Formats: sequence, C-alpha cells, structure tokens
Amino acid sequence: MRYMISFAYNGAAFNGWQKQPNAVSIQEALEKSLSVLLKNPVALVGSGRTDTGVHAQQQYAHFEWPTPIADDLDFVAFKANRMLPPGIVVYRIFPIRSDVHARFTATSRKYEYRISRIKNPFRPSMVYPFSFPLDVLAMNQAAEYLLTYSDFQSFSLVNTQVKTFRCAITEARWEERGHELIFHVRADRFLRGMVRALVGTLMDVGRGRITVTDFEQIILAKDRKKAGRAVPPDGLFLVEVTYPAHAFDPPTDAIDL
Amino acid sequence: MRYMISFAYNGAAFNGWQKQPNAVSIQEALEKSLSVLLKNPVALVGSGRTDTGVHAQQQYAHFEWPTPIADDLDFVAFKANRMLPPGIVVYRIFPIRSDVHARFTATSRKYEYRISRIKNPFRPSMVYPFSFPLDVLAMNQAAEYLLTYSDFQSFSLVNTQVKTFRCAITEARWEERGHELIFHVRADRFLRGMVRALVGTLMDVGRGRITVTDFEQIILAKDRKKAGRAVPPDGLFLVEVTYPAHAFDPPTDAIDL
Repeated sequence: MRYMISFAYNGAAFNGWQKQPNAVSIQEALEKSLSVLLKNPVALVGSGRTDTGVHAQQQYAHFEWPTPIADDLDFVAFKANRMLPPGIVVYRIFPIRSDVHARFTATSRKYEYRISRIKNPFRPSMVYPFSFPLDVLAMNQAAEYLLTYSDFQSFSLVNTQVKTFRCAITEARWEERGHELIFHVRADRFLRGMVRALVGTLMDVGRGRITVTDFEQIILAKDRKKAGRAVPPDGLFLVEVTYPAHAFDPPTDAIDL
Repeated sequence: MRYMISFAYNGAAFNGWQKQPNAVSIQEALEKSLSVLLKNPVALVGSGRTDTGVHAQQQYAHFEWPTPIADDLDFVAFKANRMLPPGIVVYRIFPIRSDVHARFTATSRKYEYRISRIKNPFRPSMVYPFSFPLDVLAMNQAAEYLLTYSDFQSFSLVNTQVKTFRCAITEARWEERGHELIFHVRADRFLRGMVRALVGTLMDVGRGRITVTDFEQIILAKDRKKAGRAVPPDGLFLVEVTYPAHAFDPPTDAIDL
C-alpha cells in the first residue's frame, strides 16, 4: 500500500527538507512523528527538496506500508500536528495507487518569491526586505525570456549531478500586491538554487545594473558566473506541486500565506 | 514642538509596550533608537499600552522636542528601521500641533483577535489555534449585546486603578476569513485584559458551554469571576487608533497582516 501526505512548513526553523546528521530537517521531523503514531518506521519520498530556510505552502511525500492502515488517517494527521513543531502542518494523509510517485509523477512545481518593499514585522524570515526602487516593467520583460528558452545552466549551482539543465518554464511574472512584489514561476522541474539565482538576476534588471537584453545573453551564456547573486531563501515558497488528474484528488486546503 | 511617530510591531519578541526594568519593551526599543538618531533623549507617550505578546498593526506615540527637527524625518525613520529589531517598523515621523496628544486626543481604538481553525506555520505567535467546532452565529448574537451595554467590569482585570468601567463599544462582530475566525472590536477605550476576556467568553458561547442569554447576564453581573478565561495574547492585534480629522492626516501605509 502507498500513502501520500500533504503538508506545509515554515523553512526558518529547519535545515531544509532532506534528512542529514546533526541538523533538524523537515523530512526527519515528519518521519519521526509518523513512525511513532503508526508504530513502525516511516520512510518518506518527497516531491523534491527545498534548501534551508525555504518554505512550502503545499508539499507532498509518499510512503510504503505493508498493509492497509487501519487507523483513522484524519486522526493520525491531527495527532501528528500536535507532536510536530509549530513550523510544520500536516493537511492530509490518504491512500494512493502504487504507481503514483510523489516525485516522478509530479508534472509541475510552482514557486513564489516575496520581496517586501517595507520592513514587515509580521513575516519574520518570510520575505526579502528591499526598499530601493525597482523597474518592475523591465523585470517582467526580462522574465518573458524564461518562457522562450529551455536551458538554464546559468542559474544552476555548479556542483550538481544533473544530466541536463533543461526546464520547461510555463509561468514567469512579477506581481505587485500591497507592500509585496511577488515573482511567480512554474516549471516541470527546477535546478538547484535556480529560483533564487533567477530572482537575484531579475532584480539586477530592476535596479538598472543590467538591461533586459543582457538578461537574455546571460541565459544564452550557460554559465553561472554570468548571472547575478542568489537572493536569500527567506522569501522563497514552494506553493504548488501538480499531478495528473488520474493520480489523485489534490487536497484544496493549503493555508493562506 | 511635538512630533508623532506611527509604527507597528510584532509583540512576540517584546515584554509589552511599557518600559520596565530587566525586560525589553517596545517603548524602550523605540526611545533608544530615536535618541541615538536625534542625539538627545526621546520620551514617548503612546496611544495606550499593549501587554506582552500583543501585536500592533497601527500604533502611535508622540514626543516633545525643544526646537523644530532639522533632519529629514523620512530618513530618520529609514535609519531607525535599520537599527530597530526585526519586530518593529516605523512608518512615519511627522510634526503635530502641540494640543494633539497620542493618548488623550485619540477617539477610538480597534482591535482584531485571530483564531486559526488549522495549525498555521506561517503566523508563529500571531494566531490562537483552535480547531474544535464553534457556533459563529451564536458568538455574533452574543457580541451584539456589547453594543447595547456600557459597563464592562466583568471583563476587566481586577487590580487596575481605573475610575470607571464604562466603554462605548461601536463595533463587535466575528468574521470568517479563509482558515481564520476574526473578532473585530472598536471602542472609545478598553479596560486591561478586556479583549482577551471578551474573546474567551464569546468562545464559551461558541462551544455551547454558556448560552447567548448567559453572556448578557455576565455583562450585567459586573464581576470578572463570572466571565470566561482570557485567551492567549498571540492572536491579538491593535489595528487602528483614530484621531479627530483636525488633528492630523493619518498615514495610510499600515502593512497588511
């Protein structure tokens, strides 16, 4: 039997998704609480990793279980939320078909990056405060190039073991909402450090350090050294992971940010 | 010369508004940073106190200055925000007439109390998580009584030195917004601990522990022991302080929650 858990977390209190020695990861916190509640070791396969400090408004992971779980799964989720630290919430635990895989069946991921134009005491470690002027029109013009190219090596950490730097970006736009400036980006996959490098380089466009044309040249260069500096993880949220319609009914209960 | 500062804070990191020995207060943090920047001691008079853990989305305080301040006040605010801890933001510093007083000229205060129906990792110490059923209709019926009575001794801390327990409540209603249940309450003044005792007692109505009629009897009893327990400070926000139109143009830049 295969089960999916749907959950969210505030990355500020964790050393990223992936389990590691001498550090508190989201994966470890979830596995520990579920193992206690289900009385056998739970090993989670996430839809993807997030780095230290990065948040998830909607994340998925699956696990295998030798037999159908007899417990009321809503009550297991309720008890897990009481056991888990304040920075993680389990939305739902539900059975899925065994050919559905949290990572490989996922068809797209969407991230948001939030810049706050004023200091915001109510989003500790959840926005990147930046009050200097930004040309949002130019940032949106540059972002449009992301929809027309597919190799994003210039925005990838260099020491990764991926076979290809190809990503199909299907949404890339900046939205001004109240005191925040939000970058929306969706793709079939993302490279390590990609969203933070994209945002840092797009902000260079917004600050007038480089032009929209320079931004296109950076994509074409396929060289991380040409791109701008990565912005801090604080403003980055994984907000959606999509699966094919036949995989399962996605929960619609993601908490508002 | 008299100056007003308009600001907000996350109460989680402070021991309330009021300066006190061996504890970090909002008043002290603000006075320290302004004293350094203006090179003379600044003594603030707030519109009112908030207790430990209580937040303010829009708060005011005034201070006296022997001469007109020559510095660019927007730049002083900018520098203050860099000096102050992450939990405080100064929106604006501006001159006011000397007969305008942050506390005595204020005509009303509005608070919001936020209950989250699910665990929310993105509002640490900023909501009261409560997932059990609540009869919001009954809570709103009970809240209507607050508009028809004026003595709220039943909801006041007992050891305060006020002369009267009379408050003119002009707004008292519950709103369901996404996963949150928000109590809106506005009055000319509030007694110590009043909003948290009101919310706790209204939740007793919502949980069916007492009836709407019982709630009216509690108001009439003028006895704190008859009311329910105070809810935690985490969900409480001072969201507005109003002044007469002739006093000054209120800043309209309060940050979204």
